[in-house]
Amino acid sequence: MKKIINDPKNVVEEMVSGLVGAYPDYVKQVPETLVVARSDEYDQVALVSGGGSGHEPSHAGFVGDGMLSAAVCGQVFTSPTPDQIHEAIKATDKGKGTLMIVKNYSGDVMNFDMAKDLAEMDDIEVDSVLVDDDIAVEDSTYTQGRRGVAGTVLVHKILGAMAREGKSISELASYGKALVEDIKTVGIALSGATVPEVGKPGFVLADDEIEFGVGIHGEPGYRREKIKPSHAIAEEIISKLKAEFKWQEGDKYGLFVNGMGATPLMELFILFNDSKKILAEDGLDLAFSKVGNYMTSLEMAGASITMIKLDDERVRLLNEPVHTIAW
Amino acid sequence: MKKIINDPKNVVEEMVSGLVGAYPDYVKQVPETLVVARSDEYDQVALVSGGGSGHEPSHAGFVGDGMLSAAVCGQVFTSPTPDQIHEAIKATDKGKGTLMIVKNYSGDVMNFDMAKDLAEMDDIEVDSVLVDDDIAVEDSTYTQGRRGVAGTVLVHKILGAMAREGKSISELASYGKALVEDIKTVGIALSGATVPEVGKPGFVLADDEIEFGVGIHGEPGYRREKIKPSHAIAEEIISKLKAEFKWQEGDKYGLFVNGMGATPLMELFILFNDSKKILAEDGLDLAFSKVGNYMTSLEMAGASITMIKLDDERVRLLNEPVHTIAW
Repeated sequence: MKKIINDPKNVVEEMVSGLVGAYPDYVKQVPETLVVARSDEYDQVALVSGGGSGHEPSHAGFVGDGMLSAAVCGQVFTSPTPDQIHEAIKATDKGKGTLMIVKNYSGDVMNFDMAKDLAEMDDIEVDSVLVDDDIAVEDSTYTQGRRGVAGTVLVHKILGAMAREGKSISELASYGKALVEDIKTVGIALSGATVPEVGKPGFVLADDEIEFGVGIHGEPGYRREKIKPSHAIAEEIISKLKAEFKWQEGDKYGLFVNGMGATPLMELFILFNDSKKILAEDGLDLAFSKVGNYMTSLEMAGASITMIKLDDERVRLLNEPVHTIAW
Repeated sequence: MKKIINDPKNVVEEMVSGLVGAYPDYVKQVPETLVVARSDEYDQVALVSGGGSGHEPSHAGFVGDGMLSAAVCGQVFTSPTPDQIHEAIKATDKGKGTLMIVKNYSGDVMNFDMAKDLAEMDDIEVDSVLVDDDIAVEDSTYTQGRRGVAGTVLVHKILGAMAREGKSISELASYGKALVEDIKTVGIALSGATVPEVGKPGFVLADDEIEFGVGIHGEPGYRREKIKPSHAIAEEIISKLKAEFKWQEGDKYGLFVNGMGATPLMELFILFNDSKKILAEDGLDLAFSKVGNYMTSLEMAGASITMIKLDDERVRLLNEPVHTIAW
């Protein structure tokens, strides 16, 4: 293992310290926790997300005006504990309730639920939106049903804009649940990631091999094969997305190509270019695009393609300005 | 070589197509060129930069209101040709002259100079600022003197803010030349990068080895050794920067930790955290921070630390809002 770290046991603590030390105008650390919260003043329903670390800039990079109120940073690829989530809820509550945005992993679901119970004992109203956008496989190493992956960032953005505009917790929860149905993702990996405390990659691919459908913690996908050209990768993923969405010519969609960490932006733009061409052939109205490293898996090489069904309101919400480190 | 590409010969063309296809509200492609230009209207001295591709988001990610007017995308790790740079100058000229921001590589210096001659035949006033912030080595594979690396992004930002505020080309050139003296960088590599048309890494490091002082095209650094903890890496780099800057307690500086491409943000934040601690011990006033992948070297793993001497005006200019894809 070759990493720019100190003691592998302290990577999350030191990362959080570096993050809040670099960007105090955006975020602050809730004392004696691994919770990163907005450093400015606000008065709205609080949005709390988080999960295991190793997916940076998710989720702390999306804390700020117009997106999340706080992100809870678990240990690497490990759900944050209920008490940490509870601290995030307490630190951000403005008396209007807290909406938790949770990626669908069994540990996260359980721990966020327990934090909800703890917060309700403090008379804080809590609801949650579960994101399960990864259509590659059903059930997985850490998940019942579908995994939550890069599409989560779009949920943060849209609900964050709505929360700032004064929507109530029940409006946000209900909108969010419908929104998640309209966001779908498929990923590929070209290499595995190494958790610092483990010291070796979670899986290994041959020098000429890629895996379709890998999760953001290295959970198995649905097929390994020889590397193919970008346009062929795009064709396979877009055809899977199309089979789920069943889109029609003229439908409005967003296209989000996310990097897993070690794949150069150059390749992400090429994959976007190929994907966009395919969607143009289908006559879709591509109303939103995003390309970059947003939901990573440490130094995994690979990418995911997320599509979101849009209407004018969702496009507007996606384009509202924010004050975050990483959107 | 395992990359998400199609024909290695077309990576830059396809990348540019993807970039302008994803972000039409920010940038457009100058027809029949590999020049990425602002897609909005403006009336100021034009700022043109660029260089070999493979450093994304540099430089096209910094095109937009408050930063660059255009970026010329050369082939991977290859200087753009004079005619392409000339096209960028012609496409962005508003009758107030063009300032070129050039990283110090012999090919870039020569080609940007030739483009200046071509543009002057069109009666466009052109001046340039040469960035040579990399203090690791003197002279290098492609450079006489010091190389231009991540500090270039800070030059884009500061001069971009000034150009928007209406400064003249001579004011910008003169300010820029002094500014470059106050920006210094040292990088490290944990792995090499593979140019698509070459198909194998430019250099190889052992599994437990890092190299200090490597350039952003894999140019040799000044020492290879076993990987050390982040705090020891920070100590070495900061001590090199201190020997150049000769700072005193209370001096105002900015700290910019840049990723080379494949190194996770987690590690960059840890390296920032360690660097910041050392500067705090020296009593510096850290008035600006930035952490992320801004001047990369394809899928090289590694990082660089840039410091910039600041005054209140420079801090203000660094914090002015911009409309770019990647700042």
